[in-house]
Amino acid sequence: MARRADRHPGPPPAAAPADPGPTATVGRIFQVVRDRGPLSASEIVRRTGLAKSTVSVHLDRLRAAGLVRPDARPGSKRQKLKVADDVGAVVGLDVGQTHLTAALCDLTAAPLARRRIPLDLARETPERVLALAGGLVAALCREAGVRGRKLFGIGVGVPGPVDFAAGVPVSPPVMPGWDRFPVATRLAKRFGCPVFLDNDVNVMALGERDRGVAAGADSFIYVKIGTGIGAGIVLHGEIHRGAKGAAGDIGHIGLDGRDEPCPCGNRGCLEVVAGGAALAAQARAAASARRSPFLAALAARQAPLDAAAVGQGALAGDATCLRLLMDSGAAVGGVLAKLVNFFNPSLIVVGGGVAGVGERYVASLREAIYRRSTPLATADLQVKRTALGEEGGAVGAAVLVLDEILSHQNVSRLVRGGRHAR
Amino acid sequence: MARRADRHPGPPPAAAPADPGPTATVGRIFQVVRDRGPLSASEIVRRTGLAKSTVSVHLDRLRAAGLVRPDARPGSKRQKLKVADDVGAVVGLDVGQTHLTAALCDLTAAPLARRRIPLDLARETPERVLALAGGLVAALCREAGVRGRKLFGIGVGVPGPVDFAAGVPVSPPVMPGWDRFPVATRLAKRFGCPVFLDNDVNVMALGERDRGVAAGADSFIYVKIGTGIGAGIVLHGEIHRGAKGAAGDIGHIGLDGRDEPCPCGNRGCLEVVAGGAALAAQARAAASARRSPFLAALAARQAPLDAAAVGQGALAGDATCLRLLMDSGAAVGGVLAKLVNFFNPSLIVVGGGVAGVGERYVASLREAIYRRSTPLATADLQVKRTALGEEGGAVGAAVLVLDEILSHQNVSRLVRGGRHAR
Repeated sequence: MARRADRHPGPPPAAAPADPGPTATVGRIFQVVRDRGPLSASEIVRRTGLAKSTVSVHLDRLRAAGLVRPDARPGSKRQKLKVADDVGAVVGLDVGQTHLTAALCDLTAAPLARRRIPLDLARETPERVLALAGGLVAALCREAGVRGRKLFGIGVGVPGPVDFAAGVPVSPPVMPGWDRFPVATRLAKRFGCPVFLDNDVNVMALGERDRGVAAGADSFIYVKIGTGIGAGIVLHGEIHRGAKGAAGDIGHIGLDGRDEPCPCGNRGCLEVVAGGAALAAQARAAASARRSPFLAALAARQAPLDAAAVGQGALAGDATCLRLLMDSGAAVGGVLAKLVNFFNPSLIVVGGGVAGVGERYVASLREAIYRRSTPLATADLQVKRTALGEEGGAVGAAVLVLDEILSHQNVSRLVRGGRHAR
Repeated sequence: MARRADRHPGPPPAAAPADPGPTATVGRIFQVVRDRGPLSASEIVRRTGLAKSTVSVHLDRLRAAGLVRPDARPGSKRQKLKVADDVGAVVGLDVGQTHLTAALCDLTAAPLARRRIPLDLARETPERVLALAGGLVAALCREAGVRGRKLFGIGVGVPGPVDFAAGVPVSPPVMPGWDRFPVATRLAKRFGCPVFLDNDVNVMALGERDRGVAAGADSFIYVKIGTGIGAGIVLHGEIHRGAKGAAGDIGHIGLDGRDEPCPCGNRGCLEVVAGGAALAAQARAAASARRSPFLAALAARQAPLDAAAVGQGALAGDATCLRLLMDSGAAVGGVLAKLVNFFNPSLIVVGGGVAGVGERYVASLREAIYRRSTPLATADLQVKRTALGEEGGAVGAAVLVLDEILSHQNVSRLVRGGRHAR
């Protein structure tokens, strides 16, 4: 689990404007153990540049607070220390358009228990969704034996823009009734722990950073191509949210020359041309026009005509399904080509239901990027499919909590006594 | 001059992996004085959170090294300290396609002397350009009385991709013969000081950050619309260069449905549709087809038909000139709209010769951005014209040097004795 500081290339970042003194040191030592542990005290001295005596004092404090403990791995000569992963737990929640997914994780973001239930987000009230979510959190805590103060925090990802500091969604198009609904406050009140709310694609990117194919990447773009299309931008290990928390909203980038109406009010948005709902509509049209034997057969059996069906058709060699997929991949790749010229990332991770239909989809997307970006910008560019499954968002939401509660300042507070830094 | 650390919002960045000990503290204190001075010792204590005794010891070291000195401003009760701006100087060089511009600046990037000479970059060898540049640097140093070790460094901006760490251009399309030419090494050898090479738009963005309309902005995009089109991305006060130093190359973003051939080998690139050379070609075509009385009159007088001429025509009410400008602004704005959705900046600064033709150009660009971005992404977006004149690039190159040589580690070294940190 490499993150933040250790990924920062070149010169160290400029000094923190506040809290640079000894109270931050214990947090820094904890972070090195979290990122690189198990480590011996002398390895920590080497990695941090701190004095041996300083490291020793703070390791005693971390041990006393129960946050680190000796690694019991047999055969190691010098005693190494690791994060006491079971001193507490966090829960990540992924509020999707069709499912509610929850994962209870230890302090290294390893999932210990998970739940997933169907959800029709567009038809439920926020109150009802939070009641369902709360039920999942409580069930996971019971299952894993986590009680009261051992629940360090809850992270929530939702499919829409979020005011991160306030913990509320902001006019989310696919979540009627959720505008500025106090998601974080409500859950915090019920569970007595800090709660952090973010856009679902942002938390998926965090999950990828800590437990997926982006491990070790300093900066990358995570692109979700599902019912909706969005991106999470990770810069030096941290989410770039932009001025209004709207960064990564690539689904509403306009395609020149297209004018399909989009629910957002604009026309020709990438999402309405190439997203999962668009693929499903194209599949239904192809089936009824009998342009695709595969889809027509599915329709005759009353089977759902969605992106997954198009993927199956492509795999089965159906020419129309193949073309629909390639067109979607080319449209998304065409937009990504522009963003690659602008941003010059070294890695793009692709996830979401549509991307999940197969490597062929990612290939058409990759081809469009390479064809229309400059050679320098694509020189070392990698385009990879996510390796995380349907719980990637929930695990990412757990990582979000860990990033926040195990930050320098908060670890200092944990060590000083107050468990929850709110 | 607010920069870096002081602009970082939210929690302080994660710890620097190396050099966190007392040697960095003196650099931090210097940076606070540089960014926020004049400051009293107790103000520095408050801003850094460091102990009074620590601040006192390091201020003595900085004074002894000649880097800070008391502010002589009359009437201030407590002694305040400021950067000893005349302890040394830096030179910024802007290698343009038509001019070579140099500015000698003090340690707050205030220009003390400047030179600007015509240059036909495409026809000169790198050796000859560096000889001309060296001549300008020497002349400026003589003029300002800067000698030997008082020249702290030289910054150079060039119109093309750069390997920043190596100090060499990388296959720059408009600079034949410059691929991997050792610009930084050559100048460093001649002047005995560190030399830093960067893309011209990146240094213009830095100039804007310290001495232009972006002062106080944490993150922004600087867009140059001149003969070429490019962008500099400033994130938390620092240039985002991307994986291969290619970030910001928006001139070669492809416009869907356009297929004008571009010297880069692709078709329909933004630069070839909307850049200064495209405007000039469109102006010549309009003049010879007699579609523009204004341009036809200029052509009859053998006056140059370039972007500036189109700007003058628009001001004079020539309908064709106006349309050409609006079309260019709409094309650039259409691309920026996509980037705004992706990146959600709070500020876009527009500079370069084409943007310089007038507020009407910026208005058409702004209109295209607002029309095609999401309301949330443009909620607080400002689009401003640069206030820096033709020496903006040279001053920005000077800021680049200051950022590098006055970084934490280097100030520590300066204080320890060795003046130049190479």
